[in-house]
Amino acid sequence: MKTIGVLTSGGDAPGMNAAIRAVVRCGIYNGLTVKGIMRGYQGLIDDEIEDMTLSSVGDIIQRGGTILRTARSAEFKTKEGRAKAAEVLKKHGIEGLVIIGGDGSFRGAQLLSNEHGVNTIGIPGTIDNDIPCTDYTIGFDTACNTAIDAINKIRDTATSHERANIIEVMGRNAGYIALYAGLAGGAEIIIIPEVKFDIDEVCDKISYGIKRGKLHHIIVLAEGVMSGLELSKMIQERLPKLDLRHTTLGHIQRGGAPSVMDRIIASQMGSRAVELLLENKSQRIISIRNNQIVDDDIDTALAMRKEFNFKLYELSKILSI
Amino acid sequence: MKTIGVLTSGGDAPGMNAAIRAVVRCGIYNGLTVKGIMRGYQGLIDDEIEDMTLSSVGDIIQRGGTILRTARSAEFKTKEGRAKAAEVLKKHGIEGLVIIGGDGSFRGAQLLSNEHGVNTIGIPGTIDNDIPCTDYTIGFDTACNTAIDAINKIRDTATSHERANIIEVMGRNAGYIALYAGLAGGAEIIIIPEVKFDIDEVCDKISYGIKRGKLHHIIVLAEGVMSGLELSKMIQERLPKLDLRHTTLGHIQRGGAPSVMDRIIASQMGSRAVELLLENKSQRIISIRNNQIVDDDIDTALAMRKEFNFKLYELSKILSI
Amino acid sequence: MKTIGVLTSGGDAPGMNAAIRAVVRCGIYNGLTVKGIMRGYQGLIDDEIEDMTLSSVGDIIQRGGTILRTARSAEFKTKEGRAKAAEVLKKHGIEGLVIIGGDGSFRGAQLLSNEHGVNTIGIPGTIDNDIPCTDYTIGFDTACNTAIDAINKIRDTATSHERANIIEVMGRNAGYIALYAGLAGGAEIIIIPEVKFDIDEVCDKISYGIKRGKLHHIIVLAEGVMSGLELSKMIQERLPKLDLRHTTLGHIQRGGAPSVMDRIIASQMGSRAVELLLENKSQRIISIRNNQIVDDDIDTALAMRKEFNFKLYELSKILSI
Amino acid sequence: MKTIGVLTSGGDAPGMNAAIRAVVRCGIYNGLTVKGIMRGYQGLIDDEIEDMTLSSVGDIIQRGGTILRTARSAEFKTKEGRAKAAEVLKKHGIEGLVIIGGDGSFRGAQLLSNEHGVNTIGIPGTIDNDIPCTDYTIGFDTACNTAIDAINKIRDTATSHERANIIEVMGRNAGYIALYAGLAGGAEIIIIPEVKFDIDEVCDKISYGIKRGKLHHIIVLAEGVMSGLELSKMIQERLPKLDLRHTTLGHIQRGGAPSVMDRIIASQMGSRAVELLLENKSQRIISIRNNQIVDDDIDTALAMRKEFNFKLYELSKILSI
Repeated sequence: MKTIGVLTSGGDAPGMNAAIRAVVRCGIYNGLTVKGIMRGYQGLIDDEIEDMTLSSVGDIIQRGGTILRTARSAEFKTKEGRAKAAEVLKKHGIEGLVIIGGDGSFRGAQLLSNEHGVNTIGIPGTIDNDIPCTDYTIGFDTACNTAIDAINKIRDTATSHERANIIEVMGRNAGYIALYAGLAGGAEIIIIPEVKFDIDEVCDKISYGIKRGKLHHIIVLAEGVMSGLELSKMIQERLPKLDLRHTTLGHIQRGGAPSVMDRIIASQMGSRAVELLLENKSQRIISIRNNQIVDDDIDTALAMRKEFNFKLYELSKILSI
Repeated sequence: MKTIGVLTSGGDAPGMNAAIRAVVRCGIYNGLTVKGIMRGYQGLIDDEIEDMTLSSVGDIIQRGGTILRTARSAEFKTKEGRAKAAEVLKKHGIEGLVIIGGDGSFRGAQLLSNEHGVNTIGIPGTIDNDIPCTDYTIGFDTACNTAIDAINKIRDTATSHERANIIEVMGRNAGYIALYAGLAGGAEIIIIPEVKFDIDEVCDKISYGIKRGKLHHIIVLAEGVMSGLELSKMIQERLPKLDLRHTTLGHIQRGGAPSVMDRIIASQMGSRAVELLLENKSQRIISIRNNQIVDDDIDTALAMRKEFNFKLYELSKILSI
Repeated sequence: MKTIGVLTSGGDAPGMNAAIRAVVRCGIYNGLTVKGIMRGYQGLIDDEIEDMTLSSVGDIIQRGGTILRTARSAEFKTKEGRAKAAEVLKKHGIEGLVIIGGDGSFRGAQLLSNEHGVNTIGIPGTIDNDIPCTDYTIGFDTACNTAIDAINKIRDTATSHERANIIEVMGRNAGYIALYAGLAGGAEIIIIPEVKFDIDEVCDKISYGIKRGKLHHIIVLAEGVMSGLELSKMIQERLPKLDLRHTTLGHIQRGGAPSVMDRIIASQMGSRAVELLLENKSQRIISIRNNQIVDDDIDTALAMRKEFNFKLYELSKILSI
Repeated sequence: MKTIGVLTSGGDAPGMNAAIRAVVRCGIYNGLTVKGIMRGYQGLIDDEIEDMTLSSVGDIIQRGGTILRTARSAEFKTKEGRAKAAEVLKKHGIEGLVIIGGDGSFRGAQLLSNEHGVNTIGIPGTIDNDIPCTDYTIGFDTACNTAIDAINKIRDTATSHERANIIEVMGRNAGYIALYAGLAGGAEIIIIPEVKFDIDEVCDKISYGIKRGKLHHIIVLAEGVMSGLELSKMIQERLPKLDLRHTTLGHIQRGGAPSVMDRIIASQMGSRAVELLLENKSQRIISIRNNQIVDDDIDTALAMRKEFNFKLYELSKILSI
């Protein structure tokens, strides 16, 4: 192994730069040449490749986003696209490829490995924390902290006006951001795809809170259930007098300086990716499970199912009584 | 003058608590009894009045929102409502009333003065900075800083994905937040009600930026022009290939710990309100003009027109070339 | 078990309020009466005890510090002091006592249990992360995030002036904050008590960096090694031309709104404490190990030794090449 | 006027990058060639000069520090040094020079103008707000906001432990940061060079506060009076039982993303500097007075005296009763 490449793919997440930095610096420390592939798999196909030096990754650990950019690629989903990608890798002498991204990006890596024997290592990077093989994905902690900062601000005005506020957070089909930010933000109600939605229960809880004298209601809604606007309409039909607002946090959740946790885990995973390649291991996904950095065969990893933390959801209900 | 009252009215704004604190502490320092009126004019009608002490306002200068709550009142818009309010003031011996709020709240104060001879002093508090008599309204600086924090976060992900992003900010019919946050946030395009909107100009600027190799476009839109969704549709019709997202910042702009500027100006205005009452002046609105705390007769103040800072708008265009 | 008490003891840490909230709400949810003991063991001796309700802990999850206050108590270190404390507990009918604090506070709990049969449960709360039985202590994540925020700010000015800066962080005899904040903050040099200090190595690394063209050097120093002033003098003796500054972060590390991680773990631990008491378990310390909330007998817990994460330290050296 | 140069000098301040960006973009917009001079006057002497393009200043408005670096120069204080500097300017065809810095940097500009006829324009940039001719210097607002953030954090732990805390802030010989941050941070005591220091008054105020039941005391101290350590010793001699800590905020005050106010004012001043040069005006210092951007002859500006805002100081005393 003399030359490795690194790319980011799918939605960006805070901490991706810390992972890139770790791949580059650990690679160079171990005598490897490290190449940065721009714009994910599409950039690979298009041969957008740059040599990385120690200073290419200087002063980036604190930056949100990804200096390698990211993009979705329709072409890479075709056999021809992947063949082109493999050729470009060969041309640059890239013997090992580190992919920082989500589930979809890992499936791309799997195909590239199966079809062209490319050595790939996946690092889980997405704010949604929805990758089954790992307890944690890079970017999740920062996104949750951004969300509670927004919840805090909205609580100020919700309290002043004695209003109810729906805050729609990201997470695709998973409710992790909603659960963590909702619990940590002291939300009265948390609505996530993993738990059957019951509009009557939601309205009862609000009515009960008003009777108890609650000055405000914060409802954290995972985007995977419905939109804030839809929920707002459903509640207002049943509680027409309720002073209700909704906010969709949107893309602010994807940016910002990464938290300590995201930087540390990204650094560890980036370093581990280089170690695995040096140990001649590939087709592996790096994960964190039970607070340990581990790695699994890519087929195994992609076949895993994740248990949702229902205990934490139950706790959120008890704590918001 | 032995007893004064203070209330917050209309939309809340960061720094209102600092103003309340200044009214209370300066009042007590000068030997006055200070009463806090809850929930604006509605609370006044409903006789929701509390005695304020030095410690009622301890540890609140850094808090967003308003400890006195705020509400809109339909009843106060009626003659009967205002008569009730005047009666409650008399009952509590409140000889001077400090109103922290926006234009609408000042018109309420004007009527209360005209109809019932109540001594009123208005302090401008709204994030929108849309009160003609004053260069500055409490809450504006904090709202702008919240907005640029959001713009920074969105720029991270906009750059990674090389996308255009519309960010809809508050301001009602005024473009101040959009202009200040847009200029300070380095937005490529700023759309405000004070300047004629031209969709072709917007699309040309985006197209030109793409040709020049710009990785991202941040478009800051004042809510007074249209919604982010509407603008998004208009742009996508003309530039269907553009990767475009929109975010409505919403109520996060109303909350959060007030900035130094909002705390200082609120403290000065709160203190000045008490001084005016002690000088037996009333029916006055406190303003800041040319960096001086001044006060005007309420009729004069409400008749003023504000010159929009077009020079700053022109500067924003030059700086985003 | 009908009545339980909760206190905070030792140095305060962000997240303590989230733990108090969880103890109170889970207690009440389970039909218990919960009493809040002010000012730690000293307040217990002095009978400073308040009934806690659902709303006593409303709107505190986001607050730094501890609403129960904390104090050190010389009197509690005496047999007589502890006898008094036990009597006060009996008087209030407190059958189970939850102690949120550090190692020293747990030893106090141990004595109280051994001498007077008080049922105690310990929850680890300290920014230093220096409690052997647990991978994590409440407050650590917030303190590290505060430290990297400070490092980021100092790096701005260090880069502008091309200076070296020493940043002294807390941690008592442990180097966790220095290691995590240093690694996450991209520090060039991290000095911790767990690794033998070598002034020549430090100066060589600085000189080598200058030769390589590094514009600034960030040196993160754990207070357990020496003070920033002392280190500054040692370096300046050897590198008199180096433009060097030092900053002691001090008490800002102990405050601030807790991070999501601190709020979640505090909530889980607070809830677990109540569960344990309801299961008639006591004399136990709650910990998080391998990402699981566990509990150990207090004697066992206090006898444990913690392995320092030298791998992470080595990684920090590789990443700062 | 075809070519202009820009440099930053003296201590760096948040917002300097926004000013550089405005000089560069307004210059280019008006058809000028703009050169960036690295490392202040020393870099000028050493001919460290770079061509600036629109993208040289892309993505910097939100960055603390200065991309042009800054340095102090002993050589520039000599006649020979300034002669060299003038020669380098001539060599590069630089006909107008914009200096962003403090008083000392302006005196350098004055000498350069007097001795060699260089056209200079000064922009006030320093966190200390200690330049007589202007109400405001770039960086002050950000530094004050950083300081109140630190005060808020320290208040959390001060309240928990019921301690007094001294917070030493910057400002050189001026008390502006201490006054603004102290007032906005709700400090009990503010100690500044502009007001005669009286240790007995300080200790009396603390003792009185303790009697009144104040849980904590925040004392904000300007570095121009004495160090936090010195003040701590003086107080402890008189109040030996007081639980007192001190923190020196240090260099964190110089860094961080600039606030909206600093970005806006820096943009306006940078733009004004280019306008002045295009109007063939020079030897002028740009200021903000009564909320207007104005400019004065450099000799006049440097001879001005600033009235300290004693009214604001008195207000801070009333508000902390």
